Amino acid sequence: MIKALVFDAYGTLFDVYSVRKACNDLFPDKGDAISQTWRSKQLEYFFLRQLFERYKPFDEITRDSLRYACKENGVTLSKEDESRLMEAYLELALFEEVEEVLKDLSEKQLVVFSNGSENMIAPLVDQSRIQPYIDSVISADEIKQYKPTPAAYNHALERLGVSREEVLFMSSNPWDILGAKSFGFRTAWINRNELPEEELDIQPDSIYSDLSGIKEWTE
Amino acid sequence: MIKALVFDAYGTLFDVYSVRKACNDLFPDKGDAISQTWRSKQLEYFFLRQLFERYKPFDEITRDSLRYACKENGVTLSKEDESRLMEAYLELALFEEVEEVLKDLSEKQLVVFSNGSENMIAPLVDQSRIQPYIDSVISADEIKQYKPTPAAYNHALERLGVSREEVLFMSSNPWDILGAKSFGFRTAWINRNELPEEELDIQPDSIYSDLSGIKEWTE
Repeated sequence: MIKALVFDAYGTLFDVYSVRKACNDLFPDKGDAISQTWRSKQLEYFFLRQLFERYKPFDEITRDSLRYACKENGVTLSKEDESRLMEAYLELALFEEVEEVLKDLSEKQLVVFSNGSENMIAPLVDQSRIQPYIDSVISADEIKQYKPTPAAYNHALERLGVSREEVLFMSSNPWDILGAKSFGFRTAWINRNELPEEELDIQPDSIYSDLSGIKEWTE
Repeated sequence: MIKALVFDAYGTLFDVYSVRKACNDLFPDKGDAISQTWRSKQLEYFFLRQLFERYKPFDEITRDSLRYACKENGVTLSKEDESRLMEAYLELALFEEVEEVLKDLSEKQLVVFSNGSENMIAPLVDQSRIQPYIDSVISADEIKQYKPTPAAYNHALERLGVSREEVLFMSSNPWDILGAKSFGFRTAWINRNELPEEELDIQPDSIYSDLSGIKEWTE
């Protein structure tokens, strides 16, 4: 029996690559490359900072990884442009089906659990049309341990006040869904980009192409 | 005063992309893509397994990441081909300058320190022309904690029997050189691919385009 539905934010509810437009507006021809490196470096930096034991909040990592992406692509980033691109992160678009699915499930406990620091994730949820359905927002920043460490998922579990088998966790990110499964949550991988299954000896409980599929867990 | 010179293996002494030829022999047109994903997934898998706290030896991770790379590229991998590609990892080429530099420094304690499991790293060193100059090979597998965790560098330090400031560590991998610097080793980043500096608030002590530059540390 699932009591809490917990959603990753970036790439799962919100389309991270909608920052691509902001990148393309500023840097025609290089926007796609910059936005892709920005995202991959952002992931790499929080993995590495976790491994180095040198925590830094997600907003600063996001800024650092943007700077790297611009350097890699031979582009000079003014303070003004940097602010503009960082602001794009606060106005990400929801994926198309998200609002309707969450509305249908709004009798359940619906929670966003993100590596994003509160100053990034709270405004993002608040400006979106799903705000009325979200019971709480949990940030890994509260314990300064990022997903996919067991410590991060355990923090979410403690905030939820249910047992770990009563949690259904959704993420589009393989590293996140497998970290959650390894910890002991029920998991539904929202495989939006038709990625192959990872070779990590862990399988998610369900795989869907978008969030619509999760309704079968609550019927 | 530097007492021990410690070298990462894959990408630093040995050219990892020389497996590209083996990939191209088996899969014309897709060899480059497969070998690049193979390497990037290999890195991702040991970062993730460290974060999940689900250690697995490097040889098995290398096999897993090869399987993923083949799936991603829509290629069927027979057992025979898999063995052939795995064997290519045991016969990687040295970068051009390596033998001469290590020969010149052979009065010093020269050590290879790798995430590679002993069954991969020992045969690789033994079949190479630098074997006579290497005093010892240290594997992160001995403590089942991968670089770039502080635990891994600390294990190497204990094996070396010197103080951490007496170690000069060389790697071409940014995540490795910065992990070592964060731990407290002196570091020389062998930036073979002219990568931009990372935005991780840590800088290596020196940056060289190949290993020849490290001689100035020992004069």
